[in-house]
Amino acid sequence: MRDVCVVGLGLIGGSVLRAAAAAGRAVWGATASARDADAARAEGYDVLAPDAALARAAERDALVVVAVPLPAVEEVLRRVPDGVRLTDVVSVKGPVAEAVARVAPRARYVGGHPMAGTSASGWAAGRAGLFRDAAWVVAAEDGADVEVLADVVGLALDAGSHVVPTTAAEHDAAVARISHLPHVLAAVLACVGADGGPLALALAAGSFGDGTRVAASDPDLVRAMCEGNRAALLTAVDDALGRLGAARGSLASTGGLAKTIDAGHRARLALHEAREAGGSGGAALTVDLASPGALEALRALGSRGGRVVGLNGGTLLARDS
Amino acid sequence: MRDVCVVGLGLIGGSVLRAAAAAGRAVWGATASARDADAARAEGYDVLAPDAALARAAERDALVVVAVPLPAVEEVLRRVPDGVRLTDVVSVKGPVAEAVARVAPRARYVGGHPMAGTSASGWAAGRAGLFRDAAWVVAAEDGADVEVLADVVGLALDAGSHVVPTTAAEHDAAVARISHLPHVLAAVLACVGADGGPLALALAAGSFGDGTRVAASDPDLVRAMCEGNRAALLTAVDDALGRLGAARGSLASTGGLAKTIDAGHRARLALHEAREAGGSGGAALTVDLASPGALEALRALGSRGGRVVGLNGGTLLARDS
Repeated sequence: MRDVCVVGLGLIGGSVLRAAAAAGRAVWGATASARDADAARAEGYDVLAPDAALARAAERDALVVVAVPLPAVEEVLRRVPDGVRLTDVVSVKGPVAEAVARVAPRARYVGGHPMAGTSASGWAAGRAGLFRDAAWVVAAEDGADVEVLADVVGLALDAGSHVVPTTAAEHDAAVARISHLPHVLAAVLACVGADGGPLALALAAGSFGDGTRVAASDPDLVRAMCEGNRAALLTAVDDALGRLGAARGSLASTGGLAKTIDAGHRARLALHEAREAGGSGGAALTVDLASPGALEALRALGSRGGRVVGLNGGTLLARDS
Repeated sequence: MRDVCVVGLGLIGGSVLRAAAAAGRAVWGATASARDADAARAEGYDVLAPDAALARAAERDALVVVAVPLPAVEEVLRRVPDGVRLTDVVSVKGPVAEAVARVAPRARYVGGHPMAGTSASGWAAGRAGLFRDAAWVVAAEDGADVEVLADVVGLALDAGSHVVPTTAAEHDAAVARISHLPHVLAAVLACVGADGGPLALALAAGSFGDGTRVAASDPDLVRAMCEGNRAALLTAVDDALGRLGAARGSLASTGGLAKTIDAGHRARLALHEAREAGGSGGAALTVDLASPGALEALRALGSRGGRVVGLNGGTLLARDS
């Protein structure tokens, strides 16, 4: 099993370090946060200075996982040795890929993103099981280094995740809809509710609590995540504005909300069905990473809602949707 | 303890019937749904035809609880005997008060609304504990019948709720913000997410699941609830459109979302603080329902985020925010 070096030991990075260690791998980390470093060391983890951690990764041919917020990524990339195996767990993929191409073009980079988190942050909030049953996106771009892609898949599977292969652009468009827009709408809803004063907050129950839950997250991390996916998020916000405006027009003119509410109900059922299908598993298939067209086949699998669930040498075991 | 007659035995009505029975009251009900009637009878409850149930309520001076969806309220009100003690648990208060004034003006009506529910519906989804620790709104309008108001407070307290006194208009404005807008936004979010196709749904995690949860509710009930509060909901939707449009403008022009995300975070903390304060309790006070200004004092308490937590004869025991 390949060694793992994690740079950034917050909620996600700290959980990756623990999950890789729990799977029996040699692991070490680095972080700019003295608090996270102390906490990780107190639990027996090996925390080095960034340059020392990366030098050891090059020496041992380890997989380096960049787990810092997007604004700090470039600073880490500048220190990455040439030829190192490199992935990341940042919540946008296009801007990270662009930064790697610019700052660390000789790294063997394959982007990743585990779709898990909590509203808490920092090492203390992490745990080895955070990624269990979660989707872990792996960027299967044309020309991707399939050996490193297999490394990232192996790490994700070790953490208990299944892997969804796609491109950076498709990932960013999808997460704008299902991760970043929810944060923007939660913030908007929280404000409109609080504008109703103490009475409104006293009456707030399940629907308001659920709809605003992610607004409890660290606002700096949420901003970095949303602002880092600006173009795709604008498209998603425009779609939401269009649909909310249509609902407003219908309510004002005819008094009816059937179209909005019924479409929302069907869409929520589609989510439920996607989860059920994912859980029970569709048709099994295998993808040999050495074969021509392997990356294209993986991307097609991801766009159908399929997932990689196993790894056997250079062969990926997958389940279709 | 006053007898209770519940008309409508779905999730809310069925739970009121069970809660009142569990508190030791004599209870009976009526419903247009054969399925709910059969299910309630199978659990030993007394389910009569509507006219028989209401006639028995008049005979025994019981409290009648109207627990049908808004579109069915008028049909029930037409059958209500003169002089009967009457409340309701419908999610909007203005339209119900207007219908009572028009169709059953001689009923002794005080509106109510327990702020509890689940995404399921029907008798089978109900339970006696549904209202435990929930806010139960009681309409303390000028000229309200304080004897019936005390009846409604007593029922709410028996069900384990605390009582928030306010007016129909203020209730409707508040729930538009914290109950109806969340349903509209959940529907919009579910649609924008599903528009991202199978890949987006495969990546959907906590934030999307939470933000769309209430879209799983029965769409007909959601429509009836939202459409019944049209004017107040329009105001809330306009507020949301304004805030979402401002976020869009800021993201497009400067790339920043600080104002939106930070304000949302503060608003969510305000909700958390309101809940903490409500749980631990502010200053205790009492309101004698026979005193002049009692109703005004109750409404002021509600608008400050306070609650009624006990009833001793004609005296309400309250906690300020």
